[in-house]
Amino acid sequence: MDMKMMDMMSMNMPGMQMDMKMMQDCIEACAACEQACVMCADAASGDNMGKMMSMCMTMSDMANTMMRMMMRPMGMDMMSMMAMLEATMMMAKACADECMMHAEMSDHAKMCAQVCMNCMKACEAMLGSMKSMA
Amino acid sequence: MDMKMMDMMSMNMPGMQMDMKMMQDCIEACAACEQACVMCADAASGDNMGKMMSMCMTMSDMANTMMRMMMRPMGMDMMSMMAMLEATMMMAKACADECMMHAEMSDHAKMCAQVCMNCMKACEAMLGSMKSMA
Amino acid sequence: MDMKMMDMMSMNMPGMQMDMKMMQDCIEACAACEQACVMCADAASGDNMGKMMSMCMTMSDMANTMMRMMMRPMGMDMMSMMAMLEATMMMAKACADECMMHAEMSDHAKMCAQVCMNCMKACEAMLGSMKSMA
Amino acid sequence: MDMKMMDMMSMNMPGMQMDMKMMQDCIEACAACEQACVMCADAASGDNMGKMMSMCMTMSDMANTMMRMMMRPMGMDMMSMMAMLEATMMMAKACADECMMHAEMSDHAKMCAQVCMNCMKACEAMLGSMKSMA
Repeated sequence: MDMKMMDMMSMNMPGMQMDMKMMQDCIEACAACEQACVMCADAASGDNMGKMMSMCMTMSDMANTMMRMMMRPMGMDMMSMMAMLEATMMMAKACADECMMHAEMSDHAKMCAQVCMNCMKACEAMLGSMKSMA
Repeated sequence: MDMKMMDMMSMNMPGMQMDMKMMQDCIEACAACEQACVMCADAASGDNMGKMMSMCMTMSDMANTMMRMMMRPMGMDMMSMMAMLEATMMMAKACADECMMHAEMSDHAKMCAQVCMNCMKACEAMLGSMKSMA
Repeated sequence: MDMKMMDMMSMNMPGMQMDMKMMQDCIEACAACEQACVMCADAASGDNMGKMMSMCMTMSDMANTMMRMMMRPMGMDMMSMMAMLEATMMMAKACADECMMHAEMSDHAKMCAQVCMNCMKACEAMLGSMKSMA
Repeated sequence: MDMKMMDMMSMNMPGMQMDMKMMQDCIEACAACEQACVMCADAASGDNMGKMMSMCMTMSDMANTMMRMMMRPMGMDMMSMMAMLEATMMMAKACADECMMHAEMSDHAKMCAQVCMNCMKACEAMLGSMKSMA
């Protein structure tokens, strides 16, 4: 998503004092996380891969939902968004941990673990910024 | 979803001691919530409807993600699921409140408010049951 | 989804002459298909299951998108909906075929194959009805 | 999505002879289309905006499903993918046309129309390439 979209979005949130640069980073981290998880789940066939595959499927859905939530200023509910950020962080951490266990055997899993950690950190920064404003 | 699917699912979760009947209710409440929110958002054109429409779009995505999460026993992460249940409850409550403000003018909104409250209660029951097991 | 929702929906489509009963059946068949595919993909670990798992993940996303499309009368574009019905039918058939290959070893796959075929037939009926009106 | 992900993906499709550069462009065009449509639908409150909002909601779901489909080489079914590309193109065109009607009054709609057209063209190129290989 380019800056122009974000500029338009901030116009819709005059009183919100959201850190738009931080939110853009978080949106991008979620989008990357969804994509990495979709690919990692697809590649995860074989023994002992069932747990990682399942976690990646859920993580891709959560990352997409988190991303869309941030792109809808009109109905943004701060408390729900903070709770969703926490849920996304928790799942991203759990998914990254699971993917790391398969990192040596699978390049998909290795990359996916990194992208999930990025997503976790971006959500954490966003949540911290929202808490300081509340 | 019929009972047979749930029976098969519980076979995948031998050690989990999840209340399967409660989870089935929660899955159904989420599915109904997604559908009501999709329809309510679609019908919500006109002045002063922007906030409700936006909340319903996000609620439909969260309900779907919550539902899918419960249908994936293989990678179920208890802490992430509890956090997601809390986020879903919070958004369902906020969405129901907003829909109630338009209940007199819109039958969609009136029904959607009820279905969101059902979803909130089903998630609350599920979360309570998980906490008592933890 | 109960009849009351559908009744409200038909109010939004006065000139459309859509067969609402048939559309309700199709919506329900898509919802069941999404759920069966989410569970089947989750259960599909082990050798030779990669293709089925991947197809079920895509089928669950397509069934959800098809369902949502039918629940949005405001922006319904007949040609796009007919094309989406065809795509859904094709994927449901391919997914059912793949699941059938694992039906003896997996109850999830056996049920999923049936539910995918139901979805295919419901989309086919819906498409036929739309063609006869066009 | 960076090139490294795509490189790994092509390893999973040895016999497919898919134009990976073209598919990457199509994946990115779908991702951008989903995001623009989510934001455009959110911003689309007010009179006469109902149709555009509804189309953008459906377009965002279709673009996401199309994107995910391309990211799952394991279960790729060529005929279903070609049908889904056609459905996505048709909806993207219809959505772009509707957004263009509001382009003068809404910057969101103007940008969304362009991004939908990009998505349409990327799907068209992808489909053409698949037909020439079939």
